[in-house]
Order: sequence, then structure tokens, then C-alpha cells
Amino acid sequence: MTRRNAFYAQSGGVTAVINASAAAVIETARRHRTRIGSVYAGRNGIIGALTEDLIDTGREPASAIAALRHTPAGAFGSCRYKLGALDTHRAQYERLIEVFRAHDIGYFFYNGGNDSADTCLKVAEVARALGYPLCAIHVPKTVDNDLAVTDNCPGFGSVAKYVATSMREAAFDVASMARTSTKVFVLEVMGRHAGWITAAVGLAGDDRTPVPLVLLFPEIAFDEAAFLAAVRAKTERFGYCCVGASEGLRGADRRLLSESGARDAFGHAQLGGVGPLVAKLVKDRLGYKYHWAVADYLQRAARHLASKTDLDQSYAVGKAAVELALAGESAVMPTIVRVSDRPYRWRIGTAPLARVANREKMLPRSYITGDGFGITAKARAYLAPLIRGEAPPPFRDGLPQYVRLKNVAVPRKLAATFEV
Amino acid sequence: MTRRNAFYAQSGGVTAVINASAAAVIETARRHRTRIGSVYAGRNGIIGALTEDLIDTGREPASAIAALRHTPAGAFGSCRYKLGALDTHRAQYERLIEVFRAHDIGYFFYNGGNDSADTCLKVAEVARALGYPLCAIHVPKTVDNDLAVTDNCPGFGSVAKYVATSMREAAFDVASMARTSTKVFVLEVMGRHAGWITAAVGLAGDDRTPVPLVLLFPEIAFDEAAFLAAVRAKTERFGYCCVGASEGLRGADRRLLSESGARDAFGHAQLGGVGPLVAKLVKDRLGYKYHWAVADYLQRAARHLASKTDLDQSYAVGKAAVELALAGESAVMPTIVRVSDRPYRWRIGTAPLARVANREKMLPRSYITGDGFGITAKARAYLAPLIRGEAPPPFRDGLPQYVRLKNVAVPRKLAATFEV
Repeated sequence: MTRRNAFYAQSGGVTAVINASAAAVIETARRHRTRIGSVYAGRNGIIGALTEDLIDTGREPASAIAALRHTPAGAFGSCRYKLGALDTHRAQYERLIEVFRAHDIGYFFYNGGNDSADTCLKVAEVARALGYPLCAIHVPKTVDNDLAVTDNCPGFGSVAKYVATSMREAAFDVASMARTSTKVFVLEVMGRHAGWITAAVGLAGDDRTPVPLVLLFPEIAFDEAAFLAAVRAKTERFGYCCVGASEGLRGADRRLLSESGARDAFGHAQLGGVGPLVAKLVKDRLGYKYHWAVADYLQRAARHLASKTDLDQSYAVGKAAVELALAGESAVMPTIVRVSDRPYRWRIGTAPLARVANREKMLPRSYITGDGFGITAKARAYLAPLIRGEAPPPFRDGLPQYVRLKNVAVPRKLAATFEV
Repeated sequence: MTRRNAFYAQSGGVTAVINASAAAVIETARRHRTRIGSVYAGRNGIIGALTEDLIDTGREPASAIAALRHTPAGAFGSCRYKLGALDTHRAQYERLIEVFRAHDIGYFFYNGGNDSADTCLKVAEVARALGYPLCAIHVPKTVDNDLAVTDNCPGFGSVAKYVATSMREAAFDVASMARTSTKVFVLEVMGRHAGWITAAVGLAGDDRTPVPLVLLFPEIAFDEAAFLAAVRAKTERFGYCCVGASEGLRGADRRLLSESGARDAFGHAQLGGVGPLVAKLVKDRLGYKYHWAVADYLQRAARHLASKTDLDQSYAVGKAAVELALAGESAVMPTIVRVSDRPYRWRIGTAPLARVANREKMLPRSYITGDGFGITAKARAYLAPLIRGEAPPPFRDGLPQYVRLKNVAVPRKLAATFEV
């Protein structure tokens, strides 16, 4: 049986648990040494492949690879670099195959979102066209939860847990202060196109712990009057109100609120995002004292609060990717299939990349309440299992201990360089 | 031996662990039923006393009081309400004594910062002047860590742990993305006057996990050129840079940066705080892509990541407050006395309120590196023990379970009302 090397790369925005997928790929490969030789990782994602800057993961001890399970972000570096169209940028793809050939790469694992699913598919196609034997498997990852076919995306559950927990905690704070001070708290969250993360803010409140929430989804055009009425109603009834706002909130004209708003003295678009914008609107129109927070990277890097479900699924898709490759599959992605809600059961499935690449799964309208400012029971049933379980990293002297790999370079074999 | 009731109130900005002090006051009082009858809490702090809106904590089961240990924010409500000077606002103080007399309050526990230490002292003085027997004890609390005499303040250690952890996690994220995307990450933190929280961001990096950090302290006048040079140097050397910026950062003219900056198209002061302002400066002058976060209430409400040391100390000062009162002390505050750094040992001491009220303990210059952008070994020795230990709340279905008390009102006894 042929023994060939594997290549693994991380793509796009990183997550609290993408390294768990990396650990799974490497650990599973190490259990199949008769079939898979070395696992090389791309330094800074696909750029590492294009520039032949490969990392030899074989130089890392098992303990370091295991520690990836509890380490956030991309241990080998990621990149925002989209390969071009096949007809105009074929050289890029051929370069990839050239590098793979030089290092006897028979397995390509690409860990990313929509764009990288597309890239992975094209790499598979070019390899086939060139007669180069390659199993190209996409490993799903995105906090945005917007990949098609899969029930949910590794990385999302942990962000969801973070924003729901953070909003719940902030709600307790605001409730304490509301009598004489802050009455409205705004938390801006990620998810530029799809409102999955905004919906997860809705989990902050439930039957046991109600929280007066107003959610602003990117899918629902911002209606200032309706929004202010909703905030006023909650504040008058409960004494305070918490607003979860998507960074991708748009007006009726479909322009991003964060870009259509105020300009500073130099004519630059206003620095703050949707959070401060919406908060100030509340102050100007309703007179309520406000506070706002923008969690930004904190929400997707918060490994200390990762969802155990998310972690398990992130590992499972990495493991499945290697098993799919060993089974000779290519141009596919392992998916998460929901078997049941109560109890929550899931298994790993498979999707052809053609059904995943370049599609965006938006939050269904049925997950949003009629008024556009809340989540429905259907949304709760979907979201709730994804944030379940805790899996804290080890702490030392009060801080989480995350691993940094040695990331030793594989000696180059090609004379030609490649500019990215 | 006389048996009298106790009054407890929370004041000012709340913290992740102020309720642990409340639990300690109530639980310790319950262990001394021959001396202390009921513990009444002020609804929304001292306003509850002024308006005779008292909460009967006796209506809460022991399990609910115990759950306060793991519940953030102020369970009885807090307020930002500073009583006036004794000579001009004596009526306020006399009203307090009137309410205390009506409910046979012999013990006054006021849980707050500088302002409330001053209020507590004045209440003690007025009680004495009126011949009303009262033990008035201040229970220290502030995330700002700026109270005099005490080595550190309950509430600070948990914020410190949160900002250090969050910056460490974000640093891993930025490091992953820096090759093609974000190179500079700015985290704005609380602490308008004193740089203790900013200093705690410095703990994000250490010998085991170095992080290229630039800190902007409120004590150090912002020097744009020096700041940009520091960010450029770190970014060129490490590929990325993380900036921890105090919300209270000031320019050489001592004006707050957040207020001296850009104005929007309507002439309003720029919405974002120091974080976005500094981030945009980096982009405009150095061309680096940036991300910024403003943690705001998330940092002080994050009970899920509280410091065990902080929690223990918050409980200890509440317990000590009751014991001091039972010993007949008044106009004092239990303090935290550091016995040794290695191993970290502390004990409870006592300070007269006259030495605490209205003073602010700033970050010593010796805690800040010569260039003004980092923390010294001395700062680390001071800060490190305060974030040690984890004390997570119980989770259910993936979310922390926090208690909400019934907060049953005590029947009013006074005919007169009081406007606040």
C-alpha cells in the first residue's frame, strides 16, 4: 500500500477550537503510519503551500499536539488569501500541485469556511486534470456557522457560548445599576452576513433566567422607530434592556449601519462600529444612560469558555477528514448531522464540496420572532445543544496555558519561488 | 446582650464578586443570631435606606445566599448616588439615622469604594453626634483597585484575570492572522484614573508565553510618536502587536483622549472610546490592519472567570466586617494585608475610615517600565497572586447559573417619605 505525506492548512478567521481539528488530523494520521508519512502544515495557511513554506508537524511531541485541543487560534498561522478563478489563475493551482508533488503530498486537508471549500474543490479538480493523485478534503470551520449542508460549523458553538454567557453576566450588571445609572447595554457581536451569533445572544435569557433582550440581526433591515419602541418597552417594564447587535446590521437601503453613519471631523467613517452607534441612538432619542461593548476577537479566541460540544465536533471532523482520505474520497467535507434534538445526538456525515463551496447558510426567518428582535423556540432548540458542556484549558498561576509549537520548516525542494 | 438588626448596601459599580461579600455578611450574621436579628439590604444601595425601601434577606433560603458567592453584580441593586457634604446635606444623614432607628439597625455595612468609605464615615459621625448607637463598617469593593491602606481591593483580581486571559487569547488570534491580515489588536480596559487594570493586561505575556504588548496607562501622558514607535518596533520584530489601553488615557494636556479626539458629522464627541481611536491612529500612521475590542461591563461581570483569590478575599472582608461590628468597632474597614509574595500569604487587617475615605491609590511609577509602555517585575510580583485560582460557577445547559433573590420588601414604618 502506498505511503504518502499529508498537507494541512488553516484558512481565514481562526476560532477557539480550530486547533482541535488540527490535533485530530495529526493524531489520526499518526495512527496510520503505514499509509500516511509526514503531516506537513502550511505556515500561514495556503500561502505556506504556495511559497513552499511547510512546517514539519513530526517535530512536535505528542504532548504538544494534544495541547492543541485546548489552545485557541491557528497554531500554524492562517491567512486571508483567496485563490483566483481557475481559468484566470490556473498557475496558482498548478504551483500547489508542484509543491505537493515535490513533497509527495497525497492528502490535502484544508480547514476553513466557504472560500476554502471552494479552493479545496478547485485543487481537487486541477489535481485530477493533471493526473496527480490527491485526496483533497475540506475540514469545516467558521464562527459564522454559515456553511451549507452541515447542521452546524465547528467554531460556532464556542462563540455562541461566549456571547450568551457574556450577555447574561452583563445583564446582571446592568440590572444592578439601572436605578440611577446605566439602563441600556449594547453588545456588538460578529457575523457580518448571517445572524447566527446574534441569535446565540438570545440564549442569555431563558425561562429560569429571563433577560430583557432586543436583538438586531443582519438579516432584518434596521428600523430605527421599531427598535427604539422595543427598547423603550423593555426598559419601562423591566427597568433595563440589553441589546445584541450584529456588526453586519444594515439599514433599509442595505447599507451597513457602521458605514452609513456619522463621519468624524476629518471625514473618515466613524470609528466605532454598530455597538456604539446604536447605543448613542438610544441615548439621543430615549435619554437612557448606556454602556456598550465590542467583543471582537475576544469572542472567537475565548478558549477558556469553549463549548465541549463544539470541541468534540471540531475534533471529530478532523478525524473524519483523515479517515475519508484514507478511504480514497476527495472533494468532500465531513459534516455534522443532527440525529435528534432531545437528547441531542449527532454523527459525522459527508458532503460533496460542490454542494458546500461558495454558499452561505443564513439564519432562517423562522428562527426570528415576528417583530424581528428576538429568537423563536425553534432557534432555541437548534442553538441550545451547541453550547453545552465545558472544557476549560489547564490554568497555571491563574492564566490558561496554551501551547506554541516549534513550527520547524521542512527543507525546500523546489528551486522556483512563488510570489503571493 | 442587645440584639439589633443589620443593614447592608452595595454602592457604585458592581463587580464579579461583590455578592460574595454580601453572602459573607449575611451568613456571618446568621451565625450570630443572639446579637444580630435581621439583615436588611438597601434596594439599590443607599437609596434604599433613604427611601426606606429595605429588603428582608431573612426571606432568602440559605441556598440562595450561598449562591451569591458565584453570582456577579449586585443582588440587591447598587446605585451611583453620593451623599452631600455634612454641613450642607445634614438632612440626608439624619434621614438615614431615622430609618435605622425605625428598624432598630445597630450595624451598618456599606460595600463600596472611595466615595462610600466617605459616606460610611459621615454616617458614623452623625450617629455619634445624635447619640444613636451604630457600628458603621465599610466593606471594600472596587475593580479599580484604588482604595488606600488595603493591599488590594476585592473585585480587582477577577477583572485582572479577565483582561490578562482575554488579551492572551486575542494575542494567539492576532499572531495567527498577522501574515495577511490584522497586525495590531487594541483592547480598551476600565480604570479611568488609576492604571491597575491596564497593568494587569501586562500579565497576558510572561516568560512561558511572551506576548508583544504595548500598554497605555492613564498615569502616563499619551505620547503619540513614542507610542507609534513602540508599536512599529514590536510589529516589525514579532509580526504583530497587542495594545492594552486605559479608557482614562490622557494627552499631555491632561485631557481625556476619548474626549479630545474626533467629532462626528453632528459635532458630537466621537462615539468610540480610546480603543478605536488608538487603533485608527495605528492604521493611519503605520498602515497596519487593526482590530479593537472594548470589554466594558463584560470585564467586571465575568464571574465565569473570577479569581479564586479575589473570591476568597471578597468573602473574607464581608465576614470580617460583621466580626468587627460585633466587637464594637465603627468607622473602620477590613483591609487585605499582604504577608508575603512567595508564597503569597494574606490576612485581614483593619483601617480607620479617615485614612481611606476620598483617597485614590494610583499605580506606582515603579510598576511601569521606563519607556512607560510596560510593567516591571515589581508590578508582576504584586499582581500575579491576585489572579490565581479558578472558582467557576455551576453551569447548566452550557450557561452559568446565577441566582436572583426574591428581594421581599420590609414593611415601612415611617410616615415621611424622602426624595432622592
